[in-house]
Amino acid sequence: MLQFAKVADKVSQEYDVRIILTPQPSDIYLLAKETKHLLIFAQHMDPISIGRGNGSILPEALKAAGAVGVILNHAEKPMSLAGLSLAIHRADEVGLATMVCADSIKEARAIAHLAPNIIVAEPTELIGTGQTSDEEYVIATTTAIKKVNPEIQVLQAAGISNAQDVYKVIKAGADATGTTSGIMKAENPETMMIEMIRAVRKAWDETHRF
Amino acid sequence: MLQFAKVADKVSQEYDVRIILTPQPSDIYLLAKETKHLLIFAQHMDPISIGRGNGSILPEALKAAGAVGVILNHAEKPMSLAGLSLAIHRADEVGLATMVCADSIKEARAIAHLAPNIIVAEPTELIGTGQTSDEEYVIATTTAIKKVNPEIQVLQAAGISNAQDVYKVIKAGADATGTTSGIMKAENPETMMIEMIRAVRKAWDETHRF
Amino acid sequence: MLQFAKVADKVSQEYDVRIILTPQPSDIYLLAKETKHLLIFAQHMDPISIGRGNGSILPEALKAAGAVGVILNHAEKPMSLAGLSLAIHRADEVGLATMVCADSIKEARAIAHLAPNIIVAEPTELIGTGQTSDEEYVIATTTAIKKVNPEIQVLQAAGISNAQDVYKVIKAGADATGTTSGIMKAENPETMMIEMIRAVRKAWDETHRF
Amino acid sequence: MLQFAKVADKVSQEYDVRIILTPQPSDIYLLAKETKHLLIFAQHMDPISIGRGNGSILPEALKAAGAVGVILNHAEKPMSLAGLSLAIHRADEVGLATMVCADSIKEARAIAHLAPNIIVAEPTELIGTGQTSDEEYVIATTTAIKKVNPEIQVLQAAGISNAQDVYKVIKAGADATGTTSGIMKAENPETMMIEMIRAVRKAWDETHRF
Repeated sequence: MLQFAKVADKVSQEYDVRIILTPQPSDIYLLAKETKHLLIFAQHMDPISIGRGNGSILPEALKAAGAVGVILNHAEKPMSLAGLSLAIHRADEVGLATMVCADSIKEARAIAHLAPNIIVAEPTELIGTGQTSDEEYVIATTTAIKKVNPEIQVLQAAGISNAQDVYKVIKAGADATGTTSGIMKAENPETMMIEMIRAVRKAWDETHRF
Repeated sequence: MLQFAKVADKVSQEYDVRIILTPQPSDIYLLAKETKHLLIFAQHMDPISIGRGNGSILPEALKAAGAVGVILNHAEKPMSLAGLSLAIHRADEVGLATMVCADSIKEARAIAHLAPNIIVAEPTELIGTGQTSDEEYVIATTTAIKKVNPEIQVLQAAGISNAQDVYKVIKAGADATGTTSGIMKAENPETMMIEMIRAVRKAWDETHRF
Repeated sequence: MLQFAKVADKVSQEYDVRIILTPQPSDIYLLAKETKHLLIFAQHMDPISIGRGNGSILPEALKAAGAVGVILNHAEKPMSLAGLSLAIHRADEVGLATMVCADSIKEARAIAHLAPNIIVAEPTELIGTGQTSDEEYVIATTTAIKKVNPEIQVLQAAGISNAQDVYKVIKAGADATGTTSGIMKAENPETMMIEMIRAVRKAWDETHRF
Repeated sequence: MLQFAKVADKVSQEYDVRIILTPQPSDIYLLAKETKHLLIFAQHMDPISIGRGNGSILPEALKAAGAVGVILNHAEKPMSLAGLSLAIHRADEVGLATMVCADSIKEARAIAHLAPNIIVAEPTELIGTGQTSDEEYVIATTTAIKKVNPEIQVLQAAGISNAQDVYKVIKAGADATGTTSGIMKAENPETMMIEMIRAVRKAWDETHRF
């Protein structure tokens, strides 16, 4: 993981593309310390404060270890609405960016009212299948979210398996994209990651600069 | 409970006020069978379909027993956002009205995007305290919810301890109100309930008829 | 369900075999009222007392509706050890028999220390597969449980699909057996149930009377 | 925390007393790297394997970060019996010692069948109150656990607020003791910790060496 993170760190600088890495909490410190450009986000955080909560993930501890953000409400770690709302508040308090997962347009709209920094539009049924959200879905979710709160960045995530998928989704208007399986299942994960970052750069430049 | 329900049933007819009663699931059948006007809502329902789910509450079973609706996301039974969204969908499928609890204005707005029939605006910190949501909060939540979806009924719930509280909250624009502790802790729960229904009638007529 | 329960009720009397039926909580009242010999057990119960707990299953309410027992810790509704321990205590207090699920021999032994009335030895991986726990497993779990507490009845549950499976498991020393899928997926569930009860009678008589 | 850990590390060596420190997962790496004698245990671990499980705590990740053990089933992070059983199995697989919390004698006995390395006998009602488990409780739980499995170490935890409490509990036969509030609420936590370690040494020597 450390080796992969170092490659990603260089690539982030070289292509001027912001890369978020989401390791296990116990890997945050080392990865944050050994990289300069990567944005290390925790995979989850509990909406607790200093005091009770043995076994829960404390916001302040993530921040102290070097995390700059946190994923909330991942399909594999669903949160109650009240818990999610409080967690976003706690993250704001300690200075962690929030990236909240939604698995339908109406959930994305609902979450937008809680004002996270990023919403991950990731229809659960597509996770890990290699089937991308189509352009129509990308446009519909992005529009729906920005209508509620235009400051929220929209990350389109489901079914990204190669650089071409990345290119398409950024061209369709996504602020960001992401994948775990698309990289980890690739023959050469580092190469795949580099190609994906190049695709982000190309799609973004074609869409936003000219 | 049956005796109380029968009194409520008569009062509902007499004052032409719709009363929702939310018993334990095992009490639904008897209460639905022995009353004519009461609306029996389950306290919770799981977002499952017929098949696996031993120990969970099946939507179809509630409907078959005589329930006409269900509470979802009560502060004492929080649901994940995805679970809540699916539960509302399942309730719509089987023909159960949905009453979803929210404990802040932003949560109320978020929930409104999931299109339940009723939102209970009940700041958690006030439950059971005898301190009512003030008029400003009533107006703010009602406005926020209706702006997202004007068809949603807004039930203002926290801190209702007597008929005067009921009167105030309906006058402030709530579509409905509710209490458990306000009735159950009263010296005479039946009398308190009757007084509260009268207060609803009076406040509603003053606000809506003239 | 009511029709099925009435048939089971007659069969229970005719063959002098105790039958436990485990319906949804909202079906308990009607099934308990309309049958005489069936033992109606709830599918789950929360370890709560009268007071807070909207959306949870109250022991007293199950008892009042006519349940005589409750399943706890089903593989589809796992409980924490502390919650399970408290739930058994609450069930004892209100007079509900407890039937606790275990999915390995070591879990069965652990649960035996909490002194439920019945332990369901049901290796999770076999549920609904049609593959029975073999005789060796039946003997091993029964022996392990009785060694900790000989008063606990052992119900061997996994993979029962026909009367022959029932016969084998009772002959192997089980105090009881059970199935949902084996009956519900049968061409004629009532016939299958009757055949299974006959198999219990036959196996029990061969094992215990002579 | 790092400074405190370094003091504990020296004290552990000086008094030849094994000290377990249980930090947030994101602090494990640094604390394990900067100390030599301390035993770093994670506060919780999920019973998962490499693959899915975003937001859960992966056993392999804790091990890689330098943890040598893990707390399971803390009163603030209760686990299902099946989950606890699987977590102990996973910990054994990756080489992490297991310390499982029990809050009654019967739960302690039940957990003993799952063969963890350490059982924490900590009646929930005493946590953080400053009231120690009395000698009778210490003897009863230790005896009950060792009877099921004599290899399990018994840590008596509740209500330890000073060195005298530590001395008494070790003299009463506990293999170990522990506290969070007793140290963190002390005027000088480092001094309190050192006094407690001295008390362990003294009580242990009086009980076991002579």
